[in-house]
This record gives sequence, structure tokens and C-alpha cells, in this order.
Amino acid sequence: MTSRVPAKVPHVVIVGGGFAGLTAARALRRAPVRVTVVDRRNHHLFQPLLYQVATAALNPGDIAYPIRAVLRHQANTRTILARVDGIDLAQRVVHLADGELSYDYLLLATGASHSYFGNDAWANWAPGLKTIEDALEIRRRVLSAFEAAERQPDPEQLRASLTFVVVGAGPTGVELAGALMEIGRLTVAKDFRSFDPRTLRVVLVEAADRVLPPYHATLSAKAKAQLEHLGVEVRLGARVTRIDATGVWLGEEHVFARTVLWAAGVAGSPLGRALGVPLDRAGRVSVQPDLSVPGHPNVFVVGDLMSVVQDGKPVPGVAPAAIQSGRAAARNIAALAAGRPTRPFRYFDKGSLATIGRAKAVGQVGRLRFSGYFAWLVWWVIHIAYLIGFRNRLVVMIGWAWNYLSFGRGARLITGRGWDPAAGDEPAARTPRP
Amino acid sequence: MTSRVPAKVPHVVIVGGGFAGLTAARALRRAPVRVTVVDRRNHHLFQPLLYQVATAALNPGDIAYPIRAVLRHQANTRTILARVDGIDLAQRVVHLADGELSYDYLLLATGASHSYFGNDAWANWAPGLKTIEDALEIRRRVLSAFEAAERQPDPEQLRASLTFVVVGAGPTGVELAGALMEIGRLTVAKDFRSFDPRTLRVVLVEAADRVLPPYHATLSAKAKAQLEHLGVEVRLGARVTRIDATGVWLGEEHVFARTVLWAAGVAGSPLGRALGVPLDRAGRVSVQPDLSVPGHPNVFVVGDLMSVVQDGKPVPGVAPAAIQSGRAAARNIAALAAGRPTRPFRYFDKGSLATIGRAKAVGQVGRLRFSGYFAWLVWWVIHIAYLIGFRNRLVVMIGWAWNYLSFGRGARLITGRGWDPAAGDEPAARTPRP
Repeated sequence: MTSRVPAKVPHVVIVGGGFAGLTAARALRRAPVRVTVVDRRNHHLFQPLLYQVATAALNPGDIAYPIRAVLRHQANTRTILARVDGIDLAQRVVHLADGELSYDYLLLATGASHSYFGNDAWANWAPGLKTIEDALEIRRRVLSAFEAAERQPDPEQLRASLTFVVVGAGPTGVELAGALMEIGRLTVAKDFRSFDPRTLRVVLVEAADRVLPPYHATLSAKAKAQLEHLGVEVRLGARVTRIDATGVWLGEEHVFARTVLWAAGVAGSPLGRALGVPLDRAGRVSVQPDLSVPGHPNVFVVGDLMSVVQDGKPVPGVAPAAIQSGRAAARNIAALAAGRPTRPFRYFDKGSLATIGRAKAVGQVGRLRFSGYFAWLVWWVIHIAYLIGFRNRLVVMIGWAWNYLSFGRGARLITGRGWDPAAGDEPAARTPRP
Repeated sequence: MTSRVPAKVPHVVIVGGGFAGLTAARALRRAPVRVTVVDRRNHHLFQPLLYQVATAALNPGDIAYPIRAVLRHQANTRTILARVDGIDLAQRVVHLADGELSYDYLLLATGASHSYFGNDAWANWAPGLKTIEDALEIRRRVLSAFEAAERQPDPEQLRASLTFVVVGAGPTGVELAGALMEIGRLTVAKDFRSFDPRTLRVVLVEAADRVLPPYHATLSAKAKAQLEHLGVEVRLGARVTRIDATGVWLGEEHVFARTVLWAAGVAGSPLGRALGVPLDRAGRVSVQPDLSVPGHPNVFVVGDLMSVVQDGKPVPGVAPAAIQSGRAAARNIAALAAGRPTRPFRYFDKGSLATIGRAKAVGQVGRLRFSGYFAWLVWWVIHIAYLIGFRNRLVVMIGWAWNYLSFGRGARLITGRGWDPAAGDEPAARTPRP
């Protein structure tokens, strides 16, 4: 493999091409190191907008971009599409499914996924939302539920087809619930003949006593009011005890639903465990103040996979924290390579924003709190601005403007497994098992 | 199921939501009939641009649109997402996978797919291009081949990774070969570090003695010259005798290739056979001059599934023929419903256009023949104009303009099965079996 930098300079291996990994790679572009970015997928994903693919507002290509195209002009960096199977900290080697990479510095940024709290079988009935494939699967299920409703003569089954349960009222759950209500009431309903869109039911289940738990209590209350104004049933302090083909159990109560989506819990990527270092309860790596791994000053963990407590509060698993930690770890690697000491990471909270639907959102920046149309506008501007490096910025903007003006959702395709009732495509068609 | 038209009016069942089926449905919007459109998929596909999804220039949502959204405002029509398993002409019943539909008039528009000439196992190594899923699978294979090349130390395997064989030099094959050459030379190559994009090899194999066989001989020659100018190897009078993990055999000659695409042959949809009426060699239904099935004046076959000879030449399987036949059959159904006689179908050849690459195309309209930049411009304008009913028209236009200006391809995502060498994702990595 040709390399434009002499092989003697330190080799930095970055595993993961999300916000944290890509920011770190870009921060090292002028450092006297050679960088290898490894990812299982060829694309970086703008995860904050993934729910828009799941709800048919955007195309996958609008929010994903090839990693090697992002790093195209960075001469000291190469990109490898490969699966990482293990890490040998003693030998300083990353084991790939089809080879290995030795490193001088390692930066692990493989993120987190949802946790089913030990009930992994629930994933079958209640998919989470982390990848493009997840989003397309959710889109397929949601659109297929309306198709099933159109042809359902049995009233109870019809109600199940038109009931959507979202588990978890963090930002993703709130966004999904709002978008589902809008898709059903405003967009898709016009296309169907045999059911009343007003019978659509979206149930948002949250174990805590409020939606958006990390937000200020007044915003949680505002978000709940906005959701309820849209028609979403918000169930607080409710624990899911069982999920199967017929829907969800909340203790003794059974919600008969064809479509259940999972937006709760956090589980660090399995590669965190492979390090053999202390993890927190969610399987994230407890790092040193400089983001390195205890006992391994040349190994850094950043983004959603890191566990950091600052001022008594955990640093949240959000895109700004991923970007800031990626940049901080890259600077520390550059410092070590130059024989200088590392510096502790300091998370700067730029504020939080969650959108609930058409012209509805809540946000907080420092002590400032806002909601409604203005918050939605701020959300919109920030997300457009952060699509930096995406050639599709203009297309996304036009798509959104169009959706807003027309109440339409252009990406309403059922692809993948398609529609095959013979293959058990109608989970809600079975009888409840108590 | 509610119906806004009294149930006594004749019931027209249209199977297939492609150009022919949708045109027929729209042509019946004011006829005193009720119409049911049945399709296995929820979307109409603008098939002439499908190769652009396969070569990462467009997103699936740019060229597909929900059938029921197209027919939203048509009060006498409903849309059903269902798989048709059989047709009982005597009982006038369409058997669905999960139910049945009785009809007074039946219009069959289920199209055609590729024919592997009895070698269906080749489909595994050489996918065809008929559905969104086909296009995404081809995109996955093409982009994965470049990724494999980036990490391939063995020179022979590297050559195989960078060799693309397209079988069949009809419009689809020509478009694919041209786009592959451009994607490799202009777009993707800039992102990779370890191979020379000039070593990319695209081989276009055609059994006939010229490319674009239905076109005038001078245009075939022009198209061949344009392809060769791009760098495509055009192999005429060449027959594929075997395809496997190592590539393609043309008689004794073995072309060692990781990626083989199939764009040859025509096979009528299996539902044609289910009718139990005479078929042509390609499995298409030989219809009467009014497009009805012999012996069943209330059953019509249109689009790519029909076999019609006019002025001694077969009517080609192209979008304009599908649109015209769909409209003609719908008029004949309306005539029969009103007690009037049917009229024979007359295909009006509006001309043909095939694009070869960036600013390269050939076209003929009547006796007029043109090629090069002007032909490409005409192709572009016509395809934009025909995206009627697609909300994404503007997005497609911007996407294309952007591609043209930037030489970029924004939809370069490897999705679906993803990258998994352990799952045998590297067919060219095996040794040739002679």
C-alpha cells in the first residue's frame, strides 16, 4: 500500500467513522503522524436526522456520506473498510476480520447502541434506530402497518395495525412519536380509503416521571404538552415488562400494537469490553480525564463509548460531546507524539434541542429556555449548518422545505423484505399471549 | 371496505403499478367503472433511471413514488398492496396470497425481467437490474469492489477487483458500462490511495454484431465509438458460456472479474404463464390486436408482458409502448363497459434515446438521427419531463446538475448486507475453476 508519509512517523489507528472518529481524524491532518480510519461501513452517518429516514421524510443518501470522500484531501490519512474483531493492548495490534493493523496510538470511537435491559429477544418486535438499515426497517414496518390497516376487516386487528408504541422518551423517542403522528394524520392518511386517520394511536412510554429527562423540568412539561396537542398518548412512570408479536405489556396492562419502536437504554459498543478495562453500568469505558484508558496512555476512547463524569454529571451521549472529545483526544495524541503532556478534556455544553414535529420543539442554551416555533427554527438552522461536508445540504433543505409546504413525505418506499404476508409479515395478526 | 362508487358498476382489476398499469388506471378515472390496482410493491418505479441508482448518482426515493399517492385523488380507484399468486379466467377471480378479488375486466401489466437463457444460477454472480433492491445490490457490489481493490496486495486479484463485465449491450447495458467507467475514472478514484484508476477495466459483452441492436446501424457505430472513447472494451459477437465466482467465460476465454452485471434477455413475468394462453418464446402473452387475450375479450395484457407484432416488427419493451398500450387497453375496457366495440392498438414510435455517459448519447426520431452532446441534452430534458407526478423532480434536477458540475456521486452508500468478508463477500478471491 502506498503511503505519502514516511513509515517511521507514529501510526494512529482510529476505529469508527462517526462524529468522534472523523473529527479526530480531521484534527490530526497537520500532525506528524499517519492516520488509518477503520469502519465496518463505508459511510459517515448524520445520526441526529436518522429518525427522518425512518419516518420517510429523507432519503438515506441525504444524511450519509462516504468516509473516504470526507478524508479525500487529507494526505496523511487512509480509510479502510473492515470489521474490527478484537484489540490486543499489549501487542498494540487491532485484529480485523481479514488482517491486522499495528498502532502506536489507538482511538476507539465505535459508539453505543440501544440496550434492551437483558431482553435482547425484544429487538425482533421493537427495532432500535442506530443505522441506515434500522431506519429502513422501521420505515418498512410503519408503512406496512398502514397497508395492513387498509385491508383489515377485523376491528380489533385494525386497531392494532393503527397503534404505534415508542418505548423511551429521550430526544429520539420524542422525535419518532411526533413524526409518526404527523405521518399518519397529515401525510399518509390522504392516500387510504378504508380507515379513519383520527383512529391512529401513538403511545410514548417512559419509565421516568417526565419526557426528555436530561432537560429542565419546565421544558419537559412543554414538550409533553406539545406531544399531547399533536395527539400522542404520553405514559410516564411506565415500565415495559414484555414485548411480543401482539404488542407491549406495561405490567398488567396490554397495549395491542402491530408496530413497536425502541428508543430506550444505552449499551456501549462490544469493542469496549474487548479492552479488558473498567466499564460503567452501560458498558462504556471509564476513561481518565485526558480520555485515555487507565494503564494505557496511548489508547483513547471518545464519543458515545466513553464514560466521563464532569462536575458531578455524566457527559451526555450527544453529537457535540462526540465532536469535542474526538478533537480533545486528537490533540492529546499529537501532544504525546511531540513529547508534550496531555491535557484533561473539558466538555462545553452548547445547549440541547429536541424537535417534536412541524414547528414544534424545545431547547435550552445555558439558562435560556425556549419552545415552539422559535425553537423549531433554531433546530432547523443548526442541523442544516452541521450538515457540513455533506454535498446534499441543498437537497436536504429543499426536501424539508417541500415537506413543510406540502405535508408530503417523498421517501415513502417499502423496500428490503418487501410485503410478504406468507412470511409472517403480520405480527399483530396473532392472538395475544397473556 | 368503503367504496365511493356503487358496487354494481363493473370492477376493473389492474395487476401491476408500472407505466402500463398506472397509465391504464388514470385513463379510467372518469369511466363508469371501479378500479382496483394491485401491486406487490407500494411504489411505482421510474425504471429508465434505475441504472443511476445502481451507479450511486441518485437515491431510490428520487425515482420511486408510492402508487397510492399517485392515485390519491382518483375517487373510483383503490390501491392494494398484495402478491398475486394466480388467476382463474373461468371464475374471473384473481388469487392473492391473502385473499381474492373477483373482476369483470382484468388488465395484466406485470412486466418482464431478465432471462439468463436457462442458466438461472448465474443470477447469483451476475445480478440484473429491475427493482430498487437490484439497484442497491449492484451499487453495493460496485462500491465494495473498489474497497476490495484498495486493500488487495495480490496483483491478479487486484485486476479482478477492478474488472467489471456487463453482459448485454442494449440501452441498460450501454448506460451501465458508461456509468461504471465514469464512476471509476472520475469520481471514486480520487478517494482511493493504493490503485491507479487507469487500470479500471469495463468489458461490455454482446452476442449480436453491434451495440444497441434495435437502433439504426450508424447510431450503433457512434455509440460503440463513444463507449470506446470512454475506455470501455466492447466485445461484439461474444457469447457468455459460463459465469461463476471468478468471472465470465466467453467460449474458451476467461475474463477474471469480481463484478459481473446482467443486462441481457427478456422473460415475461410468471403471471403470463398462469393464464394458460399462448406465449411467445420470451414468455410474453401473444395478444389480439385490441390487446385482449385470445378467447377472453375481458382480459387485457399490456406493457412489457404483451407480445405484439406491428408492420412485421415486434413492439419494443420500452416505456412509451407501455404507456400507449395501457391507455389503449383502458379505452377498450371503457368501450366494452359502454357496449361499444374495441379498437386495435397502434404503437406510435416516438423515437429512441440511449445515454452513454457525461454528455454522450445517441438518439433517433423518425428518420432523424443524432448523437453526442445534443442527444444527451435531449435525453436529459425528456427524462426530466417524464418524471411527471414525482415530487422529487426538482431534487433529481439539482442532483444531476451537481453531479455534472462536481463529477461527484452523492449516493455512494454500501448498505444492506454491508461488508462482511467472512460471509464470502469476495467472490473474486477464489481460484478460477476451468
